[in-house]
Amino acid sequence: MYALKGNLIWTEESGCFRVLENGYLLINDGCIAAVSSEPFAGVRTEDFGSRLIIPGLYDLHIHAPQYMFAGLFMDDELLVWLDKHTFPLEARFSDIIFAEKAYRAFVNDLKYSFTARASVFGTIHKDSTLFLMSLMEEAGLHGYVGKVSMDRNSPDSLRETTADAIEDELGFLDKAPEYRNVKPIVTPRFIPSCTGELLLALGKVAKERDLPVQTHLDENPGEIEWVKELLPDSKSYAEAYESFGLLDTKTIMAHSVWITEEEMDILQSHGAYIAHSPSSNMNLSSGIAPVRRFMDRGINTGLATDTAGGSSLSMFRMITDAITSSKLRWRLVDNSLAPLKFSEAFYLASKGGGSFFGKAGSFEEGYAADILVLDDVSSEMTVLAPELSLPEKLEFYAYRAPDRRPVAKYVAGKRIV
Amino acid sequence: MYALKGNLIWTEESGCFRVLENGYLLINDGCIAAVSSEPFAGVRTEDFGSRLIIPGLYDLHIHAPQYMFAGLFMDDELLVWLDKHTFPLEARFSDIIFAEKAYRAFVNDLKYSFTARASVFGTIHKDSTLFLMSLMEEAGLHGYVGKVSMDRNSPDSLRETTADAIEDELGFLDKAPEYRNVKPIVTPRFIPSCTGELLLALGKVAKERDLPVQTHLDENPGEIEWVKELLPDSKSYAEAYESFGLLDTKTIMAHSVWITEEEMDILQSHGAYIAHSPSSNMNLSSGIAPVRRFMDRGINTGLATDTAGGSSLSMFRMITDAITSSKLRWRLVDNSLAPLKFSEAFYLASKGGGSFFGKAGSFEEGYAADILVLDDVSSEMTVLAPELSLPEKLEFYAYRAPDRRPVAKYVAGKRIV
Repeated sequence: MYALKGNLIWTEESGCFRVLENGYLLINDGCIAAVSSEPFAGVRTEDFGSRLIIPGLYDLHIHAPQYMFAGLFMDDELLVWLDKHTFPLEARFSDIIFAEKAYRAFVNDLKYSFTARASVFGTIHKDSTLFLMSLMEEAGLHGYVGKVSMDRNSPDSLRETTADAIEDELGFLDKAPEYRNVKPIVTPRFIPSCTGELLLALGKVAKERDLPVQTHLDENPGEIEWVKELLPDSKSYAEAYESFGLLDTKTIMAHSVWITEEEMDILQSHGAYIAHSPSSNMNLSSGIAPVRRFMDRGINTGLATDTAGGSSLSMFRMITDAITSSKLRWRLVDNSLAPLKFSEAFYLASKGGGSFFGKAGSFEEGYAADILVLDDVSSEMTVLAPELSLPEKLEFYAYRAPDRRPVAKYVAGKRIV
Repeated sequence: MYALKGNLIWTEESGCFRVLENGYLLINDGCIAAVSSEPFAGVRTEDFGSRLIIPGLYDLHIHAPQYMFAGLFMDDELLVWLDKHTFPLEARFSDIIFAEKAYRAFVNDLKYSFTARASVFGTIHKDSTLFLMSLMEEAGLHGYVGKVSMDRNSPDSLRETTADAIEDELGFLDKAPEYRNVKPIVTPRFIPSCTGELLLALGKVAKERDLPVQTHLDENPGEIEWVKELLPDSKSYAEAYESFGLLDTKTIMAHSVWITEEEMDILQSHGAYIAHSPSSNMNLSSGIAPVRRFMDRGINTGLATDTAGGSSLSMFRMITDAITSSKLRWRLVDNSLAPLKFSEAFYLASKGGGSFFGKAGSFEEGYAADILVLDDVSSEMTVLAPELSLPEKLEFYAYRAPDRRPVAKYVAGKRIV
């Protein structure tokens, strides 16, 4: 049991900051035990002074092998970008020596980022992906990692036969439980890369072993057309996933930029999560997801970097990109959907996405003690600092210092930075 | 005379990088004298190794007093944001002690930014604005600074009478020539803040003294409606500026998000510049300017932060924001206007905007020796670094390290960082 002292700020509901200046946070057995304006007597307390103390942030969709080219090849649109850059570069992860080098760099940067837990894509390569899990576990990060399943429409070097894809997935799942905090997740890349046979098999294994699932949905008009051609009898992209049994466990659907109301019904009926990836959706010319609509409907929604579609690992950058892109959508596409407020985007990045991992992303009692300590950069960077409220200081941090490292980072009560 | 050695990269035309690995740049009398793959015999040469050497970048539109709240109050749209935050905060620059503190912070950060020259708004306050000029001059920066003219539709604390506004502008112009590198620019805020009488007087003084002009145009639909109400007889917002004589000298029109083809004709016939401010236009829910159309027509165009509408001083951030917002415009508004390529956005930020200041923004002979030396961050940050071309390394820098400081910065041949 220990306590932290500082300027506490978090959200329990979307759009509403809770603050406690010079507050105390009590941590017991990896969980938040209490918040108080008074010290906890007899408890070892670390004093972070005027620094900001916030919950961990959660990245619901990130491709670990792509991190090495985040910020490169941004002149191409999704399908071209996959063929020209992403697939050939992911194929190199068959080489475990190369994978080790690339994944060490990724995990180190993720460790020092604002992300407490993440849901991560590896590649089709079982051994490289298991190695990635071991590195994340070692770094003290929590979350999910998936070996990517692909058995069609990709280069020979990044495709398995259906039988191999199923066998390798089972092999991966047998090895993965060696890790305590980083768990396996069933990961069909997306319908264009997977035959119906493979998707059915993956749905079955997810259900039998009660494993979560992650994949892509409705990212880009060209991709959606392609799915229609591949599955002319499906009513929709989401309905296709449903029919393969891929929505029967806890599921993350990345993007959902062009999702229809009928598809939202399907996701909602299964309690699926949408990983809103605003930065990636801009970079790859995909569009802007109707996040406000997701929120109004009560669909589970979190934010995601989708590196390397997104060029930054910073969840603060995702918060501001979610806001700016929602403003453009309001102005240019549909003025019935109000732009996101900072407090709403912060909620999505913390408790919104955090709930995929259990009770996480808030300072409510019993929540996982995922905690970030941030410099009050406003006091270094603006003459207005003495006049700012805590929510303003946090907004300032998000816009002005999104690439800074946290001063301290705790995941499930364990300090890892 | 001296030379720099490193990995040179620049654009002479939009969309086309020129590169010289391990190249030499000869500087004489503040200007680029030559580029060569061989050393210049007998010339003192600074060797920057594998670092990138690029031309200076140019910020065509920035509000110095607003820098202190860049990254704050981003939940409000333009007209609300002006009334609620910007006008009251600008009013505080009547206090020269406060202004000194805020401007010192601004000029220091601008000095260490990628901006070599800028066109800057002060406030309505003559003395504070002159002080800002002195700080920029002292820092070795070049460019233009304007005392803002406003005589209507703003709070008492940020409004002059028409007579005072004219007299103060003349007083400002009489004092400003004390500075060598930082020159005055006539700066009516925008039509809603200025009576016709004031605008006419400012047009007259600009013409008589051959001074450049900067103002705002077509930023936001609400603002444009307001201008129509204020000037019901004008054919358009741009035509109104033209009729007041404000397009007869070198002019910067900030934003032009909602500009019509007829207004583009007007700007083009006068050789006016558009300061494209993508970050600000997203943050303030203004929209996305049709930059590709400006480029296709051959309208003079540069990039701008528009701090504090834009929350970053980084011209690299403006480059990537110009690209991402052009992608969204292509996808959501008009697929006849192709998204900007990195090489095109880089051109806008360097030679495109640089031409407002004369021959600047390129490594062609006779161009001002505005030069930035950048760390090759790819070699620190990605395992792919050894395989990357110079344009790829520069793209990586823009997306991954937009807030880094340059290793060295020269303006007109003088090293200031």
